[in-house]
Amino acid sequence: MAIGSSEISEVFPVDGFRLGITKAGIKYPDRKDLVIMEIAEGSSVAATFTQNRFCASPVVLSKQHLQKSTPRYLIVNTGYANAGMGAQGDRDALAVCQALADNRSVAVDTILPFSTGVIGEALPVDRITIAFDDCLNNLAADNWVSAAEGIMTTDTRPKVASVKVEHEGESFVVTGMSKGAGMIKPNMATMLGYIATDLEVESALLQRLFSGAVEHSFNCVTVDGDTSTNDSCVLVATGKSKLALQNEEGPLLEKFKSALNEICLQLAQALVKDGEGVTKFVEVRVENGLSEADCKEVAYTVAHSPLVKTALFASDPNWGRILAAIGRAEVETLDVNKVNIWLGEVAIITAGGLAPCYREELGAEMMAREEILIRIDLGLGKANAKVWTTDFSYDYVKINAEYRS
Amino acid sequence: MAIGSSEISEVFPVDGFRLGITKAGIKYPDRKDLVIMEIAEGSSVAATFTQNRFCASPVVLSKQHLQKSTPRYLIVNTGYANAGMGAQGDRDALAVCQALADNRSVAVDTILPFSTGVIGEALPVDRITIAFDDCLNNLAADNWVSAAEGIMTTDTRPKVASVKVEHEGESFVVTGMSKGAGMIKPNMATMLGYIATDLEVESALLQRLFSGAVEHSFNCVTVDGDTSTNDSCVLVATGKSKLALQNEEGPLLEKFKSALNEICLQLAQALVKDGEGVTKFVEVRVENGLSEADCKEVAYTVAHSPLVKTALFASDPNWGRILAAIGRAEVETLDVNKVNIWLGEVAIITAGGLAPCYREELGAEMMAREEILIRIDLGLGKANAKVWTTDFSYDYVKINAEYRS
Repeated sequence: MAIGSSEISEVFPVDGFRLGITKAGIKYPDRKDLVIMEIAEGSSVAATFTQNRFCASPVVLSKQHLQKSTPRYLIVNTGYANAGMGAQGDRDALAVCQALADNRSVAVDTILPFSTGVIGEALPVDRITIAFDDCLNNLAADNWVSAAEGIMTTDTRPKVASVKVEHEGESFVVTGMSKGAGMIKPNMATMLGYIATDLEVESALLQRLFSGAVEHSFNCVTVDGDTSTNDSCVLVATGKSKLALQNEEGPLLEKFKSALNEICLQLAQALVKDGEGVTKFVEVRVENGLSEADCKEVAYTVAHSPLVKTALFASDPNWGRILAAIGRAEVETLDVNKVNIWLGEVAIITAGGLAPCYREELGAEMMAREEILIRIDLGLGKANAKVWTTDFSYDYVKINAEYRS
Repeated sequence: MAIGSSEISEVFPVDGFRLGITKAGIKYPDRKDLVIMEIAEGSSVAATFTQNRFCASPVVLSKQHLQKSTPRYLIVNTGYANAGMGAQGDRDALAVCQALADNRSVAVDTILPFSTGVIGEALPVDRITIAFDDCLNNLAADNWVSAAEGIMTTDTRPKVASVKVEHEGESFVVTGMSKGAGMIKPNMATMLGYIATDLEVESALLQRLFSGAVEHSFNCVTVDGDTSTNDSCVLVATGKSKLALQNEEGPLLEKFKSALNEICLQLAQALVKDGEGVTKFVEVRVENGLSEADCKEVAYTVAHSPLVKTALFASDPNWGRILAAIGRAEVETLDVNKVNIWLGEVAIITAGGLAPCYREELGAEMMAREEILIRIDLGLGKANAKVWTTDFSYDYVKINAEYRS
């Protein structure tokens, strides 16, 4: 069901970051469903979480723990989201952390818990804690792909991105993984994402760089517009490489920023390419708006329109639906007479009216592609935004009507 | 595919308002596709139109004509929306009006044109004007059901509502029709709606009463969140009854207001019950918010959530999706600990947590119904809002992927 290549290129382990995976039988038998990540002492950690007000108990607890300590362990279960469970959910999340803290002889607030799966059913704490030893026994730095499988729910394939960057005869790596296929419209965060680097980066700078990278990657993808209760994304800098980022500018910062942005973007786009029922990968690019917020509003209105999404599924160049979506976007200053629209390289709307050279065959050819660009020029200012999304297929309905996710 | 009864109860003709219908072969052969409505001299007319900024040429022209004259004729074609066609669309809309004005020897600005159908293809003006005589030959006051068929596109049944109201030994009637099944999220207007009364009502008062009725009926329904480029709704008061509304208060005003609100509500809900691929009719009722706008934001976020809509289709009481949608609604003051949620009469969430008495069977029973109430108490203030919507089915995708609408 996913589109694009499912091949994973070389994955560089991150010194100081080890991953363990096991089949705990949390909801389904014989399925990797529990992942523990170990962070070396002395690392810096940055994180972003869902802005959904109904945030899940593990999200609440992770935020509290981050305030108190630098994390040593991240623990992720699938099957149950531990969201909407009130006080019991809070107790269960804490019980998992306490058990792991006891097992590893660390303080409980150095554990960050993460859960993903069905909302509104209790977390089976015992099934999780009993599997700790198995999981910890296979902690290893080269376990990224297996761990990426261990955090999957309706995903059809693991999502890992990795890059090695040279700098003055030394090098650092940035490696990450993500999961998520439905309830995807991250808001200031993502579904689950874990990224690590061996570069040494001080915490405040790490958080600032991470927030910037997330804003233009995970926060720009949408499958169905539904922001999850459990979105979380964590970046760990272990400092085990020979390189340390000491200045807030300079070539090393630029290299790290560019590597981090690229890894976040790859992981975010991988969510879309594996979106529930996806048959098309669509970039909605809005240019020349008065503000980035205006551009994003137009882009999301188009990206969320069920009529645009079903036309994409049908490879139907029914551009009237794109135009209608732009027209209802909440942008006060929109002037339809200045709007230009392209499908790929084909001009459709010029200055608010049908482009003289447009022919149906040209539009049909663009819509038949697996990767589609919808480009919208608002003709008002200099701001831009990009959003990546999917089409809306029979399988999206099937997946969400037949399975409880 | 529609739900609920398709029976149309007694339809009361409106003296001074006649409807003619014909098969003009505009897009498909042998299908009623052209409707002309004749308004008696001396009538008052109120109207509301789409707030989509890409409004169609007939919408632009109707607004201009309304500024200049009191309308004598409304003309509606299906097949083509005459939207997104730039200057050619404007010329075509005017050409249709001019031809009808010549035929009836009236001024061109007494004609209001309306089009519905595919966006972005040229209006076949000749096929329309050549059919005028046929259409005008069967002008009659008792043609409402046939006319309601004549304005259908992907609708599966005509939508007519009618009421007769007694007052001090006399009576007046309010009768209306509407069309629309997809691209339905009216914003300050509706898809196409035409309502007439024989009561005498002065124009400004008529417009005020109509705007109020539309705001709580057509503007509260949504199928797919896509606001059309062509939404228009017209209310005609012919003044042919023995009753005249002379005061801005009093029992006659209350009776008319109540009859008008009821007809608008019936016609608006009829759009939802015949929504594309509909299998459920859903009321999302949000209570005790700080403002009506907040309540509407929460209600629409739930009503538009693809995950909630597919759960409704599956009759799956997957209330976690409702909770997640509420949590992402853009209401700054939302306090999840004050939120209560009911499915029908079954309490699901109490004070932000799972209701102690909730059992899956109870939720499943509510979700299995054809008409479903989702009630959300925000616990913050005294404002309320209601929105009516559909589920999201395979047939919604089929209708919008396989046919160009």
